[in-house]
Amino acid sequence: MTDDQTDIAPEPEAGDEDAYALDPKTISAILYAVEVQDRGKLVELLDPLHPADIADMLEQMNAFDRMRLIRLYGEEFDGDILTELDEGIREEVVGILHPRVLASAVRELDSDDVVDLLEDLQDPQRDAILEVLDDPDRIAVEQSLTYPEYSAGRLMQREVVMAPEHWNVGEAIDFMRNSDELSQQFYHVILVDPRLKPVGKVALGKLMGSRREVMLRDITDESFHVIPVTRYDGDVAYAFNQYHLISAPVVDENDRLVGVITIDDAMAVLDEENEEDILRLAGVGEESSLSDSVMETTRQRFPWLAVNLVTAVLASLVIAQFESAIAQVTALAVLMPIVASMGGNAGTQALTVAVRALATRDLTGSNAVRVIRREITVGLVNGAAFAVIMGIVGLVWFGSPELGLVIAAAMVINLVVAGLAGIGIPIVLEKVGIDPALASGAFVTTVTDVVGFFAFLGLAVIVLL
Amino acid sequence: MTDDQTDIAPEPEAGDEDAYALDPKTISAILYAVEVQDRGKLVELLDPLHPADIADMLEQMNAFDRMRLIRLYGEEFDGDILTELDEGIREEVVGILHPRVLASAVRELDSDDVVDLLEDLQDPQRDAILEVLDDPDRIAVEQSLTYPEYSAGRLMQREVVMAPEHWNVGEAIDFMRNSDELSQQFYHVILVDPRLKPVGKVALGKLMGSRREVMLRDITDESFHVIPVTRYDGDVAYAFNQYHLISAPVVDENDRLVGVITIDDAMAVLDEENEEDILRLAGVGEESSLSDSVMETTRQRFPWLAVNLVTAVLASLVIAQFESAIAQVTALAVLMPIVASMGGNAGTQALTVAVRALATRDLTGSNAVRVIRREITVGLVNGAAFAVIMGIVGLVWFGSPELGLVIAAAMVINLVVAGLAGIGIPIVLEKVGIDPALASGAFVTTVTDVVGFFAFLGLAVIVLL
Repeated sequence: MTDDQTDIAPEPEAGDEDAYALDPKTISAILYAVEVQDRGKLVELLDPLHPADIADMLEQMNAFDRMRLIRLYGEEFDGDILTELDEGIREEVVGILHPRVLASAVRELDSDDVVDLLEDLQDPQRDAILEVLDDPDRIAVEQSLTYPEYSAGRLMQREVVMAPEHWNVGEAIDFMRNSDELSQQFYHVILVDPRLKPVGKVALGKLMGSRREVMLRDITDESFHVIPVTRYDGDVAYAFNQYHLISAPVVDENDRLVGVITIDDAMAVLDEENEEDILRLAGVGEESSLSDSVMETTRQRFPWLAVNLVTAVLASLVIAQFESAIAQVTALAVLMPIVASMGGNAGTQALTVAVRALATRDLTGSNAVRVIRREITVGLVNGAAFAVIMGIVGLVWFGSPELGLVIAAAMVINLVVAGLAGIGIPIVLEKVGIDPALASGAFVTTVTDVVGFFAFLGLAVIVLL
Repeated sequence: MTDDQTDIAPEPEAGDEDAYALDPKTISAILYAVEVQDRGKLVELLDPLHPADIADMLEQMNAFDRMRLIRLYGEEFDGDILTELDEGIREEVVGILHPRVLASAVRELDSDDVVDLLEDLQDPQRDAILEVLDDPDRIAVEQSLTYPEYSAGRLMQREVVMAPEHWNVGEAIDFMRNSDELSQQFYHVILVDPRLKPVGKVALGKLMGSRREVMLRDITDESFHVIPVTRYDGDVAYAFNQYHLISAPVVDENDRLVGVITIDDAMAVLDEENEEDILRLAGVGEESSLSDSVMETTRQRFPWLAVNLVTAVLASLVIAQFESAIAQVTALAVLMPIVASMGGNAGTQALTVAVRALATRDLTGSNAVRVIRREITVGLVNGAAFAVIMGIVGLVWFGSPELGLVIAAAMVINLVVAGLAGIGIPIVLEKVGIDPALASGAFVTTVTDVVGFFAFLGLAVIVLL
C-alpha cells in the first residue's frame, strides 16, 4: 500500500453544498401552488419532504408567503416542523396556526420535543399548548420545565427502558416484547439496582447477539457515563463527543434514574455551541439568525460596534499625543495603520486558537505555560519576518532608513504583544468566569491598537525628530 | 405553567468546563509515577481512564515526559489511545511505541479506526502497521483506503447487519443470535433487495418490541437516507444533524450496500468542520493544534498575515494620496483609523453570519436578495447611529462642525459598504468555488479599509480645504 491509490481514486464530491439542499424547482412549484391556492398540489409537493427541510424552507421565505403556505397547508401541518424551526419564526408560525391544528400537531410530539418547543415561547402561547396536552403528558412536560434551562434535565427524554441488574437476556427480551409503550428510539437497556440507581448499560445489538440465559450484567458496555440532571448541556455534548456515547442515563440528586439522553440531541447541542462560539468571536449576538428582522439584527450588532468605537477612540487618543510629529513627518500617518492592523490580525489568530482550545479542554493548567511561551515565540519569529519586509518597504517607499528601522521595531514589538495578549486574555477571562469567546476580541484589539500606534509613533519621535 | 419555575429551579452547572476535565491531582500522580519509573503505579492510575482522556493528557505533556510515559506504560498501551490522538502527536507516538506493542494495539481496533489511523501516517509507518494485520483485516483496510479522503467510504464501517426484505422479526432475531461476528455497535438492521440494494432500515428497539411474525418491511423507520460512498464527509455530517439519523447505509455506484456510518463518527466530522470554519475565519491553518511546534505554528499563520500586510499597504497607498491634507489638518490622522476600524468590525459581523449561513445551507438563492437588502439596511441604521455619536465626538474634541460632518458621513458610507461587502463577498466566493470561510476576511477588510480611508479623507478635502 503506497500513496498511489490517492491518484487512482475518484475525487469526493467535495464541497457539494447542494447535496442535501432543497431543489430550487421544488421550491418554485411550492410557491406557485401557494400563489394559485392549490391545496392538493401543495400537500402532494410537501408530503415527501422531511420536516427539517420544510422548516428550512419556511425560514427562507418571506413572511407573507409563509403565512399563506401555512394557512393553505392547514390540517396537514406536522408537529415536527415546529420543533425544527428557528426560535423567532417558530413563535410567528405558532401564532398563525389554527388552534385546532396546533393542538393536534403538538399531541404527536415526544415529551422532550414539546419541552424544546415550549421553552422558547412566551406565556400565552405556552399555556395554550400545555392546555391541549393529555394530563400525563402535561405533567411530564411541566416536570421537565422545572429543570433549569440548558441543563441535562431539559435535554433528556423521560421514556427509559430499564431492567433490574439480576435479569438475564431472555427476561429482558420478554419484558420488552410485552410492553406496549416502548420508546420509538432507544439503543441501550439501562441496568438499575433496587433503588433505581443505574449500574450499567447493555447495547441492544449485544442483547440481540447473546443467548437467553446470559446475565445482563455480563454483557454491559465497557465505558459507562452517568449524567447528573443539572449538568450544563454543553458539558453533556462534550462528554458524548469525547467518549463516543450513543445514549447515557440521567440521574437526580439521589442518583435515581430519571431519563436518558441520546446522541442526536447531544449532536444538536454541540453544533449550537460551536455556532455560538463562531458568532460571539465575530461580535454577533449568538441568538442571531438569518430570518431576524432589520431591527433585531441592528440591536444584536450595535453593542459590539459600540465597544469597538471606544477601542478605536482610545487608539485615536494615543495618536493625538503625536499630532505635531505627524505634522512634521506625514509618512507616519501613512504607515501607522499597518503596524496596528498586523497586530490586530496576529492577536485574533492567537485568541481564536486559545478560545477554541479552552472550549475543547485542550488548553489546561498543565500546558498553559508552554502554550503562552509558544505564542510569544511565534510572535517574535513572525514579527522579525514582517519587520524585515516592512523595513525594506519603508526604506524604498520613503527613502528613509530610519523610518524603515522604526516600523521594523514597532512590528516586532506589536506581534509579540499580540501573541501574549491573544493567549493571555482568554485564559484570564476564563479564570474569572467571563466567556472568552464573547469578550476577548475587544480586549485584544484594544491592546494591539494602542501598543501598535504607541510603539510606532513613540519610536518615530525618538529616532526621527 | 408560568415563567416562575425558572426562579425556583436551581441554576445549571453552567460553563463548568471542568466537569469532564482530568483532575490535576491525577495528572500530578501520573507524572510522579513516570518520574520515579513506578510501572505498577502508572498502570493503576491509567487503568480507569478513558482512552480519549489519556490521549488528551499525552497531548498536553511535553515531548520528553510523553516519551517516558509511553515507554514505561509498554504493553498496556491501548490501540484506542492512538485513534484519539492529534495527527502530529500520533505520528510521534507511533514512532516511540515498540513495534510489538504497536502491532497488538492495532490488531484490537475496528477496521474504520485503523483506516482513520493510517490515513494521517507517512508511508514507512503505514506499511509497518498494515503488515501486522491479519489478511482479511488488511484487505478491508486497503479497500477503504481506495476511497478518496474525506469521503463517506473512509468514514463507514464495513461490518453491516443486513436482512432480506421478505424476512420477519423472528427470522432476523434468530439470524442475529446465531451469527458469531456481530459488530459491537449497531442500531439498525438494513433491509436489502436480492441485488443488495438497501430498501429500508429497522431500529433494533422496534425489532425488540415487535412479535416474531411481524414482517420487517412493516416496521421500517419512516425516514430513510442512503449515502453514496463518494459523498463528502461534511455533507454526510450535515445529513445526520439535519435528519436526526443514528446510522445510515452507504452504497457504491451500483447502489449496492457496502457499509454503514454511525452518528458518533458523523458527530466527530461535524465538530471538525466547525473547528475548521472557526480557525479559517481567523486566518489560522485549519490543521493547527495546540501541540504544534513553534515552526509549524509560525508557518500556518504567516500566509494570512502576509495577505493582511498587502491589504494594509493598499490602505496606506490611499492615505498617501492625502498626505498634504493631513499635514494641514492633523486631526484627520487622529480620526481616520476610527472609520476604518468600525467598517472592519461591521464587515466581519456580516461576513461571519454569511459564512455560517452558507455552511448550514440557511443562505440560498431563494433568500439571498432579501438577506443582502437586510445587511445594507442594518449598515445604514447602525451607520446613522454611530454617525451621530462620532459627529458629536468630532465636534466636541476638535471644535469643528465640518469635521464632525465629515466623519459622520464617512461612517454611514463605510458601514453600508461593510454590510454589502460582508454578505456579498462570501456569496460570490461560494459561487466561484472558493471556501468563503478561508478568503472572505481578507477581501472584506480590504474593502472597508480602502473605502473607510478614502471616504473620510476625500470628504475632508472637499469640505475642509
